[in-house]
Amino acid sequence: MVMQFLSDNAAPVHPQVWAAMQAADAAQPPYDGDRLSQALDERFSALFEQSCAVLWVATGTAANCLALATMVPPHGGVICHSEAHIETDECGAPGFYTHGAKLLLGDGPGAKLDGAAIRSVLGTIRNDVHQVQAHALSITQASEYGLTYKPDELAEVAGAARAAGLKLHIDGARFGNAVASLGCSPRVACLGADALSFGCVKNGAMSAEAIVFFDESLADLARLRRKRAGHLQSKGRFMAAQLLAMLDQDLWLANARAANAAAQELATAAAGRLLYPVEANEVFLHLSPAEREALRAQGFSFYDWGADAARLVTAWNARAEHVQALARAIAAL
Amino acid sequence: MVMQFLSDNAAPVHPQVWAAMQAADAAQPPYDGDRLSQALDERFSALFEQSCAVLWVATGTAANCLALATMVPPHGGVICHSEAHIETDECGAPGFYTHGAKLLLGDGPGAKLDGAAIRSVLGTIRNDVHQVQAHALSITQASEYGLTYKPDELAEVAGAARAAGLKLHIDGARFGNAVASLGCSPRVACLGADALSFGCVKNGAMSAEAIVFFDESLADLARLRRKRAGHLQSKGRFMAAQLLAMLDQDLWLANARAANAAAQELATAAAGRLLYPVEANEVFLHLSPAEREALRAQGFSFYDWGADAARLVTAWNARAEHVQALARAIAAL
Amino acid sequence: MVMQFLSDNAAPVHPQVWAAMQAADAAQPPYDGDRLSQALDERFSALFEQSCAVLWVATGTAANCLALATMVPPHGGVICHSEAHIETDECGAPGFYTHGAKLLLGDGPGAKLDGAAIRSVLGTIRNDVHQVQAHALSITQASEYGLTYKPDELAEVAGAARAAGLKLHIDGARFGNAVASLGCSPRVACLGADALSFGCVKNGAMSAEAIVFFDESLADLARLRRKRAGHLQSKGRFMAAQLLAMLDQDLWLANARAANAAAQELATAAAGRLLYPVEANEVFLHLSPAEREALRAQGFSFYDWGADAARLVTAWNARAEHVQALARAIAAL
Amino acid sequence: MVMQFLSDNAAPVHPQVWAAMQAADAAQPPYDGDRLSQALDERFSALFEQSCAVLWVATGTAANCLALATMVPPHGGVICHSEAHIETDECGAPGFYTHGAKLLLGDGPGAKLDGAAIRSVLGTIRNDVHQVQAHALSITQASEYGLTYKPDELAEVAGAARAAGLKLHIDGARFGNAVASLGCSPRVACLGADALSFGCVKNGAMSAEAIVFFDESLADLARLRRKRAGHLQSKGRFMAAQLLAMLDQDLWLANARAANAAAQELATAAAGRLLYPVEANEVFLHLSPAEREALRAQGFSFYDWGADAARLVTAWNARAEHVQALARAIAAL
Repeated sequence: MVMQFLSDNAAPVHPQVWAAMQAADAAQPPYDGDRLSQALDERFSALFEQSCAVLWVATGTAANCLALATMVPPHGGVICHSEAHIETDECGAPGFYTHGAKLLLGDGPGAKLDGAAIRSVLGTIRNDVHQVQAHALSITQASEYGLTYKPDELAEVAGAARAAGLKLHIDGARFGNAVASLGCSPRVACLGADALSFGCVKNGAMSAEAIVFFDESLADLARLRRKRAGHLQSKGRFMAAQLLAMLDQDLWLANARAANAAAQELATAAAGRLLYPVEANEVFLHLSPAEREALRAQGFSFYDWGADAARLVTAWNARAEHVQALARAIAAL
Repeated sequence: MVMQFLSDNAAPVHPQVWAAMQAADAAQPPYDGDRLSQALDERFSALFEQSCAVLWVATGTAANCLALATMVPPHGGVICHSEAHIETDECGAPGFYTHGAKLLLGDGPGAKLDGAAIRSVLGTIRNDVHQVQAHALSITQASEYGLTYKPDELAEVAGAARAAGLKLHIDGARFGNAVASLGCSPRVACLGADALSFGCVKNGAMSAEAIVFFDESLADLARLRRKRAGHLQSKGRFMAAQLLAMLDQDLWLANARAANAAAQELATAAAGRLLYPVEANEVFLHLSPAEREALRAQGFSFYDWGADAARLVTAWNARAEHVQALARAIAAL
Repeated sequence: MVMQFLSDNAAPVHPQVWAAMQAADAAQPPYDGDRLSQALDERFSALFEQSCAVLWVATGTAANCLALATMVPPHGGVICHSEAHIETDECGAPGFYTHGAKLLLGDGPGAKLDGAAIRSVLGTIRNDVHQVQAHALSITQASEYGLTYKPDELAEVAGAARAAGLKLHIDGARFGNAVASLGCSPRVACLGADALSFGCVKNGAMSAEAIVFFDESLADLARLRRKRAGHLQSKGRFMAAQLLAMLDQDLWLANARAANAAAQELATAAAGRLLYPVEANEVFLHLSPAEREALRAQGFSFYDWGADAARLVTAWNARAEHVQALARAIAAL
Repeated sequence: MVMQFLSDNAAPVHPQVWAAMQAADAAQPPYDGDRLSQALDERFSALFEQSCAVLWVATGTAANCLALATMVPPHGGVICHSEAHIETDECGAPGFYTHGAKLLLGDGPGAKLDGAAIRSVLGTIRNDVHQVQAHALSITQASEYGLTYKPDELAEVAGAARAAGLKLHIDGARFGNAVASLGCSPRVACLGADALSFGCVKNGAMSAEAIVFFDESLADLARLRRKRAGHLQSKGRFMAAQLLAMLDQDLWLANARAANAAAQELATAAAGRLLYPVEANEVFLHLSPAEREALRAQGFSFYDWGADAARLVTAWNARAEHVQALARAIAAL
């Protein structure tokens, strides 16, 4: 039997999401004219304690890139970390959606940027027509290494963006895990953002992510671009139903907490081996090839991370016995 | 109570599709690495009696435009009817996906093109660098007015494309309705096509369409472009499950037949009023504003079609009593 | 010996333009930082009796498309005549520069649009996300058939654009010929435009066209896009020199008058054969294949215009003896 | 009086270029149908001792980006140095011309790449649809720091490209300076390239660069894209005349040698201060702010290069007395 720690992106759909989708089956106006889609703005505004406009899309890539396309002109640039998902794992989707805008790469430990890193990128750009000018900043909460931006760190980043006249996008593919880890309100976890990709697929949904526009003037543009990108589904009610189910009774937070707790259990077992502190639901740890082989021989599935490390990801449905088994196996190496 | 004849695009999901989706819930490799996605090529190849490569996407717009993007360079053009969906109702998505390629418009009754219409468009294009050269032809089976290309008509169109070195794309948003109407094999209904957008959402699925590449060399390109467009869902098994459910025991054909039969019943009642022969599941009929109002007052919902006509669309789940009631009401006008 | 009436686009460079270019040879700051480029805004503002910002580019295609790119987003559309140069003869350049925006085609005699034609195009566009929304209008002064927009016609067109919230672009590849024909001020000949492609290459320059932005807020955007399109020449002083030479002592107008006068002479000789009134420097006339052959046998070079007509174009340097010879030859047919 | 060492990009036009342009004034077929444009392939094929197809364009940015656009699809990538001109100084033009393809950055001293650097970039790219796959390699001969690729270095680079299935583009904005420095044939200086941007504007021309396609199958594509980018000038004969004048009696080489010799004189004077060996016509040297101020006070104009260095560029028309004066001034610091 295989015990999965490869990723959270293919985990099952939560029963409450299934139930909500099935309850949405009766025909309604197509696209986003249905009652459920129409309820999104209000529900998310309540969650975030501020007015926002919300669109559903099928993938995180679409969410990130549609959001960015509203923030940056084709001749402009987006500052992001050199290990950001938009830079490394979206097959050039930002270039497609923004019509060739450039990702301007910064660096920092754990795939996080701070104010200095942002200013360092800005400092390389002469203000003339020969160089791509920055229009937006995109960060990931939690980062590609499972690290969160604490409220003060986020304030610093948002301040650096604001000072440079940049729009701020947050890739929240694992925003739930970040909030669960930070213990703050969702509002505080993305304060200063103009748009947030609020991830649900990794957290119990089937095929719906939310783009949350705190700068609501961007949402109408995104609506046109969504259609133009072939992302306006005609039975959109099933998309909205997933998102609403995730919000109901804070399912999103409960699921994220479960995943995080499993990661903590692994982190404790792997204490001396961690590449990064474990804050969300990803565990990066030093493991020799032989050690990885030993774990795999016991049925654990995960990705290599370079030559001497591995990445373990826990999902909302992490089974206690699998997690405990893996924790024991790591401790026993 | 409202009796819906607005569109087939928001109808409920067929129970067999629901069942297949739920059976696919257990975690599998992400994206299209799952067992179901991997089965698509074989299943569709059997259906079409020829080897083909198949990708799922969430919308017909994405299916059409990804297919076209593999056929035409940014500086090229696609011949299509001036009333084709790609020209009129996709918010410029073809221009987005093809990076600015041009739709070269032809005309013909019922939104259908014939060989002469295609040659007429070609005849306006000088072969020099100042004019956009045609690289592909896109037709709709059944057309935007619910008319089918008979095998000999299709042969003529495909021949005209081949003679001009054009790739042939078929928008089959209602391909099932076309096949049900033609009474031929699916293979014959798209013979000569290099790619077919095989529509399922209007025919009982939730959110999955198939792009069927008969020119399989185009499929690898489409896989990259699908990711780049944010259409590669991580839980792709739910997309594949929908498509496979539609093929199982020819559910797609049974659903299309049901929709077509309902349309025939309306056509019979509206015999003297038809703008076009009713071949699939769309009925366009002359109706004065007063007549439309009279029908709506009885609870029927449908779109106006210009000043003196209306469009009625029947879906796979058309309820016999609604259809009969509308037929009676039309006959009684 | 060949007597050329093919086009004005390859005529020699006017001696005053040569002189100005040579006077500009001494090194200066690169790009548009030179003294001559810096003088353009003021000189054109004086000519047009209103403040404007001016950029040089090498071709009319670049001028038209850079201007349009500042007016329409990638998901938007530009209304133009179905025979407009941007639609028929620029190899899809508008689609390239605007990242896939759509040309929305209207019709009218002589490749001119009027208010009704514009409203007719607008009337086909539903205001929803499924259809491309118009953002700009582009007309050609003089039109592709050498017809001018009279001040009242222009007012109607500009009014229709304004009423619909459209930016107005004028393709003035032969703007000089239009002004010479209209006998009005240049200001009046483009009143209401947000940007004008002020053509010089067909009128005595070598390789410089001016984009005149009356909406100066668009010019900064155009400057970035010009660089991004590889149109920012490092020795821009030679571009500016050409434009300034054209303005000096109204050389542009004198050249245009000479070309127009030659066309009038041909028009008089061809009185019964004209497809359109001759207002600028293009003469379209009915000529059978045999008649065309007869003229060509006498040494006249020109384009066929369909099966039974021809297009004659006169340039700024039209030689009196060639023009008279052609006039006689036509009269003698 | 200012003595210019800012750049070679705004230097005067060589008298032989002027003469050739004026000799080309008589009307000819427009665009590239003239006798001069038609002669380019043969003349450049002779120069490079191999068959090639040649297009003129107005700028190096256009030359680079049109060449790349024929080599890489929108979803692909181009490997280049992180300090390559296409990455840092073209306002995102590669993203525009390639429709969003990605520049994949490598590193190496002096803005040069070697085989290991290329393989290092390739090594970061998984071969799946989530990552942008490399399709081309672009290097600069001479590099942005004035360094040349020696024949064996070029062979290594070309071999690495070939081994990875990459097309090879060479940005030769200062190709003449490279050849003059290397003392080899032009063929050897770009051996293995599929396309070369053969720079002339920095070397005595006014506004014409050549794109030399050694892979001639790419040239037809470039012809279409050139028109679509608004770079097909109607009086193209003046563009071709410039290129032919540069080739006549190897003017390009004589001019480059003159510029290089001037740079050598400066290099000798600045021996202990050089950031890089001086191989072509650029001199990068350590200069404190005070030293720079001292030089400027004596009338020398040049760019700062970071906080403690400067860049001096010599042009084809470098005046001996200015060069000697600067050499003395540097030596005297």
